[in-house]
Amino acid sequence: MKARVTVSLKPGVLDPQGRAILHALEGLGFAGVHDVRVGKVIELELADGTTPEAVEEMGRKLLANPVIENFRVEVA
Amino acid sequence: MKARVTVSLKPGVLDPQGRAILHALEGLGFAGVHDVRVGKVIELELADGTTPEAVEEMGRKLLANPVIENFRVEVA
Repeated sequence: MKARVTVSLKPGVLDPQGRAILHALEGLGFAGVHDVRVGKVIELELADGTTPEAVEEMGRKLLANPVIENFRVEVA
Repeated sequence: MKARVTVSLKPGVLDPQGRAILHALEGLGFAGVHDVRVGKVIELELADGTTPEAVEEMGRKLLANPVIENFRVEVA
């Protein structure tokens, strides 16, 4: 089975990578880009029967930094 | 409007960050994790009326490295 954990910076946390992309898009001539935020997506190939709760625990313990990041778990 | 570009390594491309997470999960006692791949998710806040084609072009020109990465565009 597969699970996907999407990790994103909490609102208000400065995102220098996102700002760099925003400026690069402007430099390339793309108009109308107001904001860019960059996150991570972690795709896990898991043993069948792994519970969503176990994946949540992976997120809390390792995959996200709870001080500055939120994460979302999707199990397929 | 918002758009999300998900960038992932092509199959077969070595993912050292994913392997590090895999080993760290094993070290924390999580069993049954077979594989981990890490990608990026880029959330764009765009002017209304920006076409999905424009976002695709951003992906091709800047957001993804087409030699080693695939990307997928979702417009909300």
